[in-house]
Amino acid sequence: MIRTIEWTDEGVVMIDQRRLPAHELYPVFKTHEEVAKAIEEMVIRGAPAIGVAAAMGIALGMQNSRATSLDEFARDFHNVCERLSATRPTAVNLFWAVERMRWVFNHARREASAIDAIRKQLVDEALAIHREDIEANRRMGRFGAELIPDNATVLTHCNAGALATAGFGTALGVIRAAVEAGKRVRVYADETRPFLQGARLTAWELAKDNIPVTVITDSMAGHILKSGEVDCVIVGADRIAANGDVANKIGTYMVAVAAHENNIPFYVAAPLSTVDLSLNSGDLIPIESRADEEVTHFRGEPITPEGVKVANPAFDVTPHRYISAIITDAGVAREPYDTSLNALFENRN
Amino acid sequence: MIRTIEWTDEGVVMIDQRRLPAHELYPVFKTHEEVAKAIEEMVIRGAPAIGVAAAMGIALGMQNSRATSLDEFARDFHNVCERLSATRPTAVNLFWAVERMRWVFNHARREASAIDAIRKQLVDEALAIHREDIEANRRMGRFGAELIPDNATVLTHCNAGALATAGFGTALGVIRAAVEAGKRVRVYADETRPFLQGARLTAWELAKDNIPVTVITDSMAGHILKSGEVDCVIVGADRIAANGDVANKIGTYMVAVAAHENNIPFYVAAPLSTVDLSLNSGDLIPIESRADEEVTHFRGEPITPEGVKVANPAFDVTPHRYISAIITDAGVAREPYDTSLNALFENRN
Repeated sequence: MIRTIEWTDEGVVMIDQRRLPAHELYPVFKTHEEVAKAIEEMVIRGAPAIGVAAAMGIALGMQNSRATSLDEFARDFHNVCERLSATRPTAVNLFWAVERMRWVFNHARREASAIDAIRKQLVDEALAIHREDIEANRRMGRFGAELIPDNATVLTHCNAGALATAGFGTALGVIRAAVEAGKRVRVYADETRPFLQGARLTAWELAKDNIPVTVITDSMAGHILKSGEVDCVIVGADRIAANGDVANKIGTYMVAVAAHENNIPFYVAAPLSTVDLSLNSGDLIPIESRADEEVTHFRGEPITPEGVKVANPAFDVTPHRYISAIITDAGVAREPYDTSLNALFENRN
Repeated sequence: MIRTIEWTDEGVVMIDQRRLPAHELYPVFKTHEEVAKAIEEMVIRGAPAIGVAAAMGIALGMQNSRATSLDEFARDFHNVCERLSATRPTAVNLFWAVERMRWVFNHARREASAIDAIRKQLVDEALAIHREDIEANRRMGRFGAELIPDNATVLTHCNAGALATAGFGTALGVIRAAVEAGKRVRVYADETRPFLQGARLTAWELAKDNIPVTVITDSMAGHILKSGEVDCVIVGADRIAANGDVANKIGTYMVAVAAHENNIPFYVAAPLSTVDLSLNSGDLIPIESRADEEVTHFRGEPITPEGVKVANPAFDVTPHRYISAIITDAGVAREPYDTSLNALFENRN
């Protein structure tokens, strides 16, 4: 059982994903500012996990608030929410989680609850988001496992596992559920430059679960897909537009195009909290650009000649026409996604 | 002027490409065994450069031969050729260069030349291969430059530059020739994991020549191609089959597919010495698998969890249907390649 993030009396405990797989460390984050920095610096990453961290960060910030009046407390709440919202722009689960915390806060305030009562409700909501994410992954796993043949070879990009969620995982959750259902599955994991989530995190998770994994560099995925060895590709998502376009870790688009070209099913696994019905198309999803040093340096050592320019978009958008199905916690959506995704939201309500 | 490889009285001098860009070192290789190891360990890489190194390695080996009879000398020659041929399997220029050396040797032997005369002819042939490669790159540059629009943004994968050849470069030679012709060209260079030829070598070469270059991770190429910023892709080649299928650095295939999907011309630049008319299809090209450590470790530090399996194919094959044109030193070939490549060989003879 991988403990990605936990609420404790000491603060928010997170496994430091920057140090894996060499070091398995569980630092405690005691303020909402520390949680915000942890999200920015990728101590924790993965859209669902970021949502949980933001919610816990808000709950923590309000535990620490010294406000004595409800108005002051509301001002602090606003500031804490703004701080957490400003950490990363692409994963919509972050904003979704902040909205859930705002809803609870506003509801409690309308009911004129006492500060301590609101604090408790915020913690409860953060814990509910954590718990529900694991449940959503489990459901997604059951829906998705049916798409995985026995004796399957699956290719995945980045880490959409327990470490990217409250637990179990989205793409890796589907693989875990297939294995739990008795299917034999082996995995190709793209290393996922520049942060190496695949080489470091996906490989670590799958090895822990004794699921056979072979790490490849990102550029090998096309060659492997063309070889005929791979039965399907499964990835997670950071934001899904209403038309089914998917923002996910940089490189996902190339994998999707290569899978499409070789007639290999390309699946996206993500909870409905990742779907942003307010955007009609993936072109509207904001794409984060991260620091040059992630590309120019490796563990402090320069790779590129000094002064050379680099680009570092952290995500790309895969147009829906390359996506065979989107596996959610409410069922599996297929083309046309604007209808099918909407239907999943309506059935759930 | 980049000095990739030179024949000197001391031995073969090569810039150590494993140490670039941090260190610009020019070690001397004094035996054919040292040259063979340098090829295997990628002190020197790039199909045309490997061909030159193999030829110089053979010339060096025969300088060092202690044979006293022509028969002994022939046995040594055979062993030296076998050793150099066994260094790397994919780049056909290696075998092409060995064949040239064999031809010179056999011709001299038939004429009953003295050992020292043969030694001199072998050195002359290695120097001719070196000189002709630069000339071929210059011609390729002139043919290719016409395909580059002014104000162009060009994406390249791996290093097909001066460092991959005797000088000037194949893909980068085309870019250099376009710049020399007064065109403004900026370059996106894929970093090219695992050996980072793009981040380390292409960036270094282009920065030296003041050609604007932006390094990206390999997985970003699709996103950049989809963005509409790129006018064309140019890469080198390690072996080209008679039907126009191209073996090149792992990852080339994914770039070609993404370029095709976005209607961006995809050009291959390679001398005719890279074309292997004996193979009807790229499926027949042997693909080298290199050591796991290139993927699992970075400068001695592990990236992946201990014991995790990796794959490390060093090349992939891009089917000819993705290739807009093959720029050679004898002219530009287009579909159908079996006819057009053949015609270039015939025109040259």
